Amino acid sequence: MDFSKLDGLVPAVVQDETSHEVLMVGFMNQEALTLTLETGFATFFSRTRGKLWTKGETSGNRLRVTSALVDCDDDTVLLKVQRLGDGNVCHTGERTCFNRELTPDVARTGA
Amino acid sequence: MDFSKLDGLVPAVVQDETSHEVLMVGFMNQEALTLTLETGFATFFSRTRGKLWTKGETSGNRLRVTSALVDCDDDTVLLKVQRLGDGNVCHTGERTCFNRELTPDVARTGA
Repeated sequence: MDFSKLDGLVPAVVQDETSHEVLMVGFMNQEALTLTLETGFATFFSRTRGKLWTKGETSGNRLRVTSALVDCDDDTVLLKVQRLGDGNVCHTGERTCFNRELTPDVARTGA
Repeated sequence: MDFSKLDGLVPAVVQDETSHEVLMVGFMNQEALTLTLETGFATFFSRTRGKLWTKGETSGNRLRVTSALVDCDDDTVLLKVQRLGDGNVCHTGERTCFNRELTPDVARTGA
Protein backbone atom coordinates (compact mmCIF):
# COMPACT_ATOMS: atom_id res chain seq x y z
CA MET A 1 0.00 0.00 0.00
CA ASP A 2 1.05 3.55 -0.70
CA PHE A 3 0.43 5.54 2.46
CA SER A 4 2.52 8.50 1.27
CA LYS A 5 -0.17 10.58 -0.43
CA LEU A 6 -2.14 11.39 2.73
CA ASP A 7 0.55 11.54 5.41
CA GLY A 8 0.34 7.88 6.34
CA LEU A 9 -3.33 7.27 5.64
CA VAL A 10 -5.44 5.69 2.91
CA PRO A 11 -9.20 6.01 2.47
CA ALA A 12 -11.21 2.85 3.05
CA VAL A 13 -14.61 2.55 1.42
CA VAL A 14 -17.02 0.25 3.24
CA GLN A 15 -19.67 -1.47 1.16
CA ASP A 16 -22.44 -3.81 2.33
CA GLU A 17 -21.67 -7.18 0.74
CA THR A 18 -25.35 -8.00 0.30
CA SER A 19 -27.15 -4.76 -0.54
CA HIS A 20 -24.04 -3.22 -2.17
CA GLU A 21 -24.80 0.07 -0.42
CA VAL A 22 -21.80 2.26 0.32
CA LEU A 23 -22.02 2.60 4.10
CA MET A 24 -19.13 4.87 5.08
CA VAL A 25 -15.61 5.98 4.27
CA GLY A 26 -12.92 5.95 6.92
CA PHE A 27 -9.16 6.33 6.93
CA MET A 28 -6.57 3.72 7.82
CA ASN A 29 -2.92 3.86 8.68
CA GLN A 30 -0.70 0.78 8.36
CA GLU A 31 -1.64 -0.41 11.84
CA ALA A 32 -5.40 -0.03 11.27
CA LEU A 33 -5.16 -1.88 7.98
CA THR A 34 -3.14 -4.72 9.47
CA LEU A 35 -5.57 -5.02 12.40
CA THR A 36 -8.53 -5.03 10.02
CA LEU A 37 -7.10 -7.90 8.01
CA GLU A 38 -5.93 -9.85 11.07
CA THR A 39 -9.12 -9.52 13.12
CA GLY A 40 -11.67 -9.39 10.31
CA PHE A 41 -13.32 -6.32 11.81
CA ALA A 42 -12.99 -2.87 10.24
CA THR A 43 -10.63 -0.66 12.24
CA PHE A 44 -9.83 2.92 11.30
CA PHE A 45 -7.59 5.78 12.33
CA SER A 46 -9.63 8.71 13.57
CA ARG A 47 -8.26 11.92 12.11
CA THR A 48 -10.08 14.05 14.67
CA ARG A 49 -9.17 11.95 17.73
CA GLY A 50 -5.75 10.89 16.51
CA LYS A 51 -6.14 7.24 17.44
CA LEU A 52 -7.32 3.85 16.23
CA TRP A 53 -10.94 2.86 16.62
CA THR A 54 -12.68 -0.36 15.76
CA LYS A 55 -16.04 0.51 14.26
CA GLY A 56 -18.74 -0.63 16.70
CA GLU A 57 -16.41 -1.03 19.68
CA THR A 58 -18.93 0.81 21.86
CA SER A 59 -22.19 0.41 19.89
CA GLY A 60 -21.67 -3.24 19.02
CA ASN A 61 -22.37 -2.39 15.39
CA ARG A 62 -19.15 -3.89 14.16
CA LEU A 63 -18.35 -4.48 10.50
CA ARG A 64 -17.22 -8.00 9.64
CA VAL A 65 -14.96 -7.91 6.60
CA THR A 66 -15.81 -10.56 4.04
CA SER A 67 -13.50 -9.35 1.30
CA ALA A 68 -10.90 -6.64 0.83
CA LEU A 69 -9.73 -5.11 -2.43
CA VAL A 70 -7.06 -2.58 -3.34
CA ASP A 71 -7.20 -0.14 -6.22
CA CYS A 72 -4.91 0.17 -9.22
CA ASP A 73 -2.47 2.59 -7.63
CA ASP A 74 -2.38 1.00 -4.19
CA ASP A 75 -3.74 4.01 -2.35
CA THR A 76 -7.37 3.10 -1.60
CA VAL A 77 -9.07 0.14 0.04
CA LEU A 78 -12.52 -1.30 -0.60
CA LEU A 79 -13.98 -3.48 2.13
CA LYS A 80 -17.07 -5.58 1.68
CA VAL A 81 -18.73 -6.21 5.00
CA GLN A 82 -21.57 -7.70 6.96
CA ARG A 83 -23.24 -5.27 9.37
CA LEU A 84 -23.45 -6.62 12.92
CA GLY A 85 -25.47 -5.37 15.91
CA ASP A 86 -28.50 -3.35 14.90
CA GLY A 87 -26.99 -2.87 11.47
CA ASN A 88 -26.98 0.91 11.63
CA VAL A 89 -23.55 2.09 10.63
CA CYS A 90 -23.89 5.85 11.01
CA HIS A 91 -23.53 7.52 14.41
CA THR A 92 -26.80 9.32 13.64
CA GLY A 93 -28.61 5.96 13.76
CA GLU A 94 -29.03 5.63 10.00
CA ARG A 95 -28.01 2.51 8.11
CA THR A 96 -25.49 4.39 5.99
CA CYS A 97 -23.55 7.61 6.49
CA PHE A 98 -24.58 8.69 2.96
CA ASN A 99 -28.16 9.76 3.49
CA ARG A 100 -28.41 13.33 2.24
CA GLU A 101 -28.54 14.63 -1.29
CA LEU A 102 -25.56 16.75 -2.27
CA THR A 103 -27.16 19.92 -3.60
CA PRO A 104 -25.19 22.91 -4.90
CA ASP A 105 -26.01 24.68 -1.62
CA VAL A 106 -24.54 21.88 0.46
CA ALA A 107 -21.51 21.76 -1.85
CA ARG A 108 -20.83 25.45 -1.22
CA THR A 109 -21.64 25.79 2.45
CA GLY A 110 -22.13 22.45 4.13
CA ALA A 111 -25.54 23.70 5.26
CA MET B 1 -18.83 20.64 2.59
CA ASP B 2 -15.95 20.48 5.01
CA PHE B 3 -12.76 20.67 2.97
CA SER B 4 -10.60 21.38 6.01
CA LYS B 5 -9.62 17.84 6.98
CA LEU B 6 -7.55 17.13 3.86
CA ASP B 7 -6.12 20.52 2.96
CA GLY B 8 -8.95 21.55 0.69
CA LEU B 9 -9.96 18.14 -0.62
CA VAL B 10 -12.67 15.58 0.03
CA PRO B 11 -12.73 11.97 -1.18
CA ALA B 12 -15.36 11.14 -3.78
CA VAL B 13 -16.48 7.53 -4.12
CA VAL B 14 -17.80 6.63 -7.56
CA GLN B 15 -20.38 3.85 -7.75
CA ASP B 16 -22.06 2.40 -10.83
CA GLU B 17 -25.74 3.25 -10.51
CA THR B 18 -26.81 -0.01 -12.13
CA SER B 19 -24.37 -2.70 -11.02
CA HIS B 20 -23.60 -0.90 -7.72
CA GLU B 21 -19.92 -1.69 -8.20
CA VAL B 22 -17.52 0.76 -6.60
CA LEU B 23 -15.51 1.95 -9.59
CA MET B 24 -12.93 4.38 -8.21
CA VAL B 25 -12.18 6.95 -5.55
CA GLY B 26 -10.91 10.39 -6.48
CA PHE B 27 -10.42 13.66 -4.64
CA MET B 28 -12.25 16.92 -5.21
CA ASN B 29 -11.60 20.48 -4.19
CA GLN B 30 -14.40 23.05 -4.12
CA GLU B 31 -13.95 23.84 -7.82
CA ALA B 32 -14.01 20.19 -8.90
CA LEU B 33 -17.13 19.54 -6.85
CA THR B 34 -18.91 22.58 -8.25
CA LEU B 35 -17.96 21.63 -11.82
CA THR B 36 -19.14 18.06 -11.24
CA LEU B 37 -22.56 19.22 -10.10
CA GLU B 38 -22.87 21.90 -12.79
CA THR B 39 -21.76 19.78 -15.73
CA GLY B 40 -23.03 16.38 -14.56
CA PHE B 41 -19.65 14.78 -15.34
CA ALA B 42 -17.29 13.67 -12.61
CA THR B 43 -14.32 16.04 -12.29
CA PHE B 44 -11.52 15.54 -9.80
CA PHE B 45 -8.43 17.28 -8.51
CA SER B 46 -5.33 15.27 -9.30
CA ARG B 47 -3.06 15.19 -6.28
CA THR B 48 -0.10 14.05 -8.33
CA ARG B 49 -0.55 16.54 -11.18
CA GLY B 50 -1.93 19.37 -9.06
CA LYS B 51 -4.77 20.23 -11.41
CA LEU B 52 -8.38 19.49 -12.26
CA TRP B 53 -9.24 16.64 -14.59
CA THR B 54 -12.55 15.50 -15.93
CA LYS B 55 -12.57 11.71 -15.90
CA GLY B 56 -12.61 10.52 -19.53
CA GLU B 57 -11.52 13.85 -21.02
CA THR B 58 -9.00 12.01 -23.19
CA SER B 59 -10.36 8.44 -23.25
CA GLY B 60 -14.00 9.42 -23.70
CA ASN B 61 -14.90 7.20 -20.77
CA ARG B 62 -16.68 9.94 -18.92
CA LEU B 63 -18.81 9.35 -15.85
CA ARG B 64 -22.29 10.85 -16.00
CA VAL B 65 -23.49 11.67 -12.49
CA THR B 66 -27.05 10.53 -11.84
CA SER B 67 -27.12 11.26 -8.13
CA ALA B 68 -24.80 12.76 -5.54
CA LEU B 69 -24.87 12.19 -1.80
CA VAL B 70 -22.91 13.63 1.10
CA ASP B 71 -22.07 11.82 4.32
CA CYS B 72 -23.05 12.63 7.88
CA ASP B 73 -20.09 14.87 8.63
CA ASP B 74 -19.94 16.66 5.30
CA ASP B 75 -16.48 15.45 4.37
CA THR B 76 -17.07 12.71 1.79
CA VAL B 77 -19.04 12.51 -1.46
CA LEU B 78 -20.75 9.51 -3.05
CA LEU B 79 -21.51 9.79 -6.75
CA LYS B 80 -23.72 7.34 -8.59
CA VAL B 81 -22.85 7.29 -12.24
CA GLN B 82 -23.41 5.87 -15.69
CA ARG B 83 -20.22 4.74 -17.43
CA LEU B 84 -19.83 6.25 -20.90
CA GLY B 85 -17.44 5.34 -23.72
CA ASP B 86 -16.22 1.76 -23.52
CA GLY B 87 -17.28 1.68 -19.89
CA ASN B 88 -13.83 0.84 -18.55
CA VAL B 89 -13.10 3.24 -15.73
CA CYS B 90 -9.59 2.20 -14.74
CA HIS B 91 -6.56 3.44 -16.67
CA THR B 92 -5.42 -0.18 -16.83
CA GLY B 93 -8.43 -0.97 -19.02
CA GLU B 94 -10.43 -2.72 -16.34
CA ARG B 95 -14.04 -1.81 -15.56
CA THR B 96 -13.22 -0.83 -11.99
CA CYS B 97 -10.05 0.35 -10.26
CA PHE B 98 -10.70 -2.18 -7.48
CA ASN B 99 -9.66 -5.41 -9.10
CA ARG B 100 -7.03 -6.96 -6.83
CA GLU B 101 -7.45 -8.77 -3.56
CA LEU B 102 -5.90 -6.98 -0.60
CA THR B 103 -3.75 -9.66 0.96
CA PRO B 104 -1.58 -9.10 4.04
CA ASP B 105 1.44 -8.97 1.73
CA VAL B 106 -0.07 -6.19 -0.37
CA ALA B 107 -1.08 -4.36 2.80
CA ARG B 108 2.52 -4.37 4.01
CA THR B 109 4.44 -3.76 0.84
CA GLY B 110 2.24 -2.74 -2.04
CA ALA B 111 3.71 -5.64 -3.99
